[in-house]
Amino acid sequence: MNAIHDNEYGRRLSRLQQTIRNLQADACIISTSVNQFYLLGHIFDGYIYLLPDGEPLLFVKRPAGITGGRVNYIRKPEQLPELLSQSRIELPQRVLVECDSISYSAISRLQSALGMPELINVSGEIRRIRSIKSEYELEQLRRSADIHAAVYRQIPHIYREGMTDIQFQIELEREMRLAGSAGIFRTFGENMEIFMGSILAGENAQSASPFDFALGGEGLSPLLPIGANGTKLIPGTTLMVDMAGNYTPWMSDMTRTFAIGEVPEIAHRAHRLSIDICNAIAGTARPGTPCADLYALAEEMVKKNGLADFFMGTKQQAKFVGHGIGLEINEPPVLAPRSKELLECGMTIAVEPKFVLPAIGAVGIENSYIVQQNGLEKITRYEEELTSLS
Amino acid sequence: MNAIHDNEYGRRLSRLQQTIRNLQADACIISTSVNQFYLLGHIFDGYIYLLPDGEPLLFVKRPAGITGGRVNYIRKPEQLPELLSQSRIELPQRVLVECDSISYSAISRLQSALGMPELINVSGEIRRIRSIKSEYELEQLRRSADIHAAVYRQIPHIYREGMTDIQFQIELEREMRLAGSAGIFRTFGENMEIFMGSILAGENAQSASPFDFALGGEGLSPLLPIGANGTKLIPGTTLMVDMAGNYTPWMSDMTRTFAIGEVPEIAHRAHRLSIDICNAIAGTARPGTPCADLYALAEEMVKKNGLADFFMGTKQQAKFVGHGIGLEINEPPVLAPRSKELLECGMTIAVEPKFVLPAIGAVGIENSYIVQQNGLEKITRYEEELTSLS
Repeated sequence: MNAIHDNEYGRRLSRLQQTIRNLQADACIISTSVNQFYLLGHIFDGYIYLLPDGEPLLFVKRPAGITGGRVNYIRKPEQLPELLSQSRIELPQRVLVECDSISYSAISRLQSALGMPELINVSGEIRRIRSIKSEYELEQLRRSADIHAAVYRQIPHIYREGMTDIQFQIELEREMRLAGSAGIFRTFGENMEIFMGSILAGENAQSASPFDFALGGEGLSPLLPIGANGTKLIPGTTLMVDMAGNYTPWMSDMTRTFAIGEVPEIAHRAHRLSIDICNAIAGTARPGTPCADLYALAEEMVKKNGLADFFMGTKQQAKFVGHGIGLEINEPPVLAPRSKELLECGMTIAVEPKFVLPAIGAVGIENSYIVQQNGLEKITRYEEELTSLS
Repeated sequence: MNAIHDNEYGRRLSRLQQTIRNLQADACIISTSVNQFYLLGHIFDGYIYLLPDGEPLLFVKRPAGITGGRVNYIRKPEQLPELLSQSRIELPQRVLVECDSISYSAISRLQSALGMPELINVSGEIRRIRSIKSEYELEQLRRSADIHAAVYRQIPHIYREGMTDIQFQIELEREMRLAGSAGIFRTFGENMEIFMGSILAGENAQSASPFDFALGGEGLSPLLPIGANGTKLIPGTTLMVDMAGNYTPWMSDMTRTFAIGEVPEIAHRAHRLSIDICNAIAGTARPGTPCADLYALAEEMVKKNGLADFFMGTKQQAKFVGHGIGLEINEPPVLAPRSKELLECGMTIAVEPKFVLPAIGAVGIENSYIVQQNGLEKITRYEEELTSLS
């Protein structure tokens, strides 16, 4: 593991402190795991209390044993006013909180405890801050992508004739874990449940899911309706592999598709188009490129090839072709028709033009890229062609 | 899979409708996966809109293809007033929502969309409703527990001399998945992150974690500080196995501990005390028993045996000895000193008196029980003694 630069956390905290000042707020309170990890490198049950300047205060319920000058142990948020007062800090009038991720109950209780300050939602702004990666973070992403590729190299060895999608997935999950996968796969938002990734075989690729991922799948149980459903891998169908790249905290995202035996010509044609779209986007995208333009480029290529009915699903079609990646698998920016975002240097995006072909399955690829000054750097380096498993 | 009784969902919905009437509310809006699954048997992105009487309305964003007389497709919550009006339903004045699980942003937006009705938090009440299981649900729990035991029977075959905790865990995860584990492991609350369960070996059992589980562990990464951390399984230490029982939607919870070679006498003594506490609780608990009394019983036995310093951790000690189980792993009731809950017939609880012994590791067991009219029915039937792996 690379040593993390001393100034890495300082840089992240000061970007958030700039936001506090810009929004003329008095404090920002952080209690989600993902943002605590981002700002301090560790997770605790409690609050990071960040002022417009200076070191953050930590109000910690658990774990025991966190030390440092500005650490206060608490049992409940109602203790904050007195502890702030002891540190000669006034109660905030305007406070930034993570309204998109923290429950209504928890935020309401915190607001009452602090004497009802005005709340400003900081979730989107922290996600924007996180979307621009440092060199250290980019190195983590590249390392994750390299391991991701090494794991996918096991796919031909895992495949056995007559397997089901879930039997295949279980063996791939084991390879992932042996390669250092963290297991949990962090997503943003209330409708993004998944377990370690998605395997889609044959007709199951058409099943619409309730979650906001590119494709669906019925899942094994109505309790988690996404991905593999026990479909047997049979000749003439495809196997799409889109498993998590969580080998470092900064996650890569990569999809590859395999043919079971021989598949119809349209599968090869649509798969080739997916590769071409990725290449076209990679050839066009620069810092400053509107994300909506990249979606439009993909859409135009799809229409020109007469494959619009199969693009990003059939019964339900996702209206995006890519998304930011990082500590969560769905970060800004989003490559969607109505996106107002422009690419910036240091952003990291996954591009996933996919097709679902009735009676065949899903085809296409997904690559992860870093937005560099002179264009996109592809970090998911693994054979892209539709190769046959047998 | 047993066929689900037709009246199962009707019974659940009418219990919640009774709550709506009791709280003199006009409607209850459900949007968490776990409660949607509980009330309807499927999950969607959108809202169940439940009136004090009659069939629920569904406002669905995704997936495509949900049919039924009372299904309305929507893009956003702002469409609710018009659709309610079309169904001749007045905007609610008082509405029950899941404040403990839905984000501040999502609930605030919904409240605005509905013209700012008064909000009442229904999270706790639904959890109380869910805590009393039907015969069908108990059958699911028993089935999960039986598979849970069958998977633990593989433990002696998985163990290899010189393994690390995580190498052991990965092979056990594979056995779990092959036996039908759903993978994801649903918890309630903002501080309950975990992946498929916990394996604690040797000194790692002392590491305090930020999460509200019985024990801790450093984890493999500061991104998920819980459980296995790469500790080698060495003679004289223990291996505690507390992996998820998610083989049906209703989860069992079971811990077993194994000695690596020979372990000191205190490990056997503390482990025996854990079994004795489970048996004492099982021998005492009846419908009507205060949960706090069961904690007090455990605590008294621990003190009498001089093991209080090691009970439920060392550096950080959890203040409970058991908890409800079901669709989430931490349901009501909680067996804790300040619990005001009484056991009721049909509740399902896990009892987990555990000890952490410095330089040795964690010992103890956890069993799942059903509260029956005449006492506790143990459903986790698997050897409880501290047996040696070699």
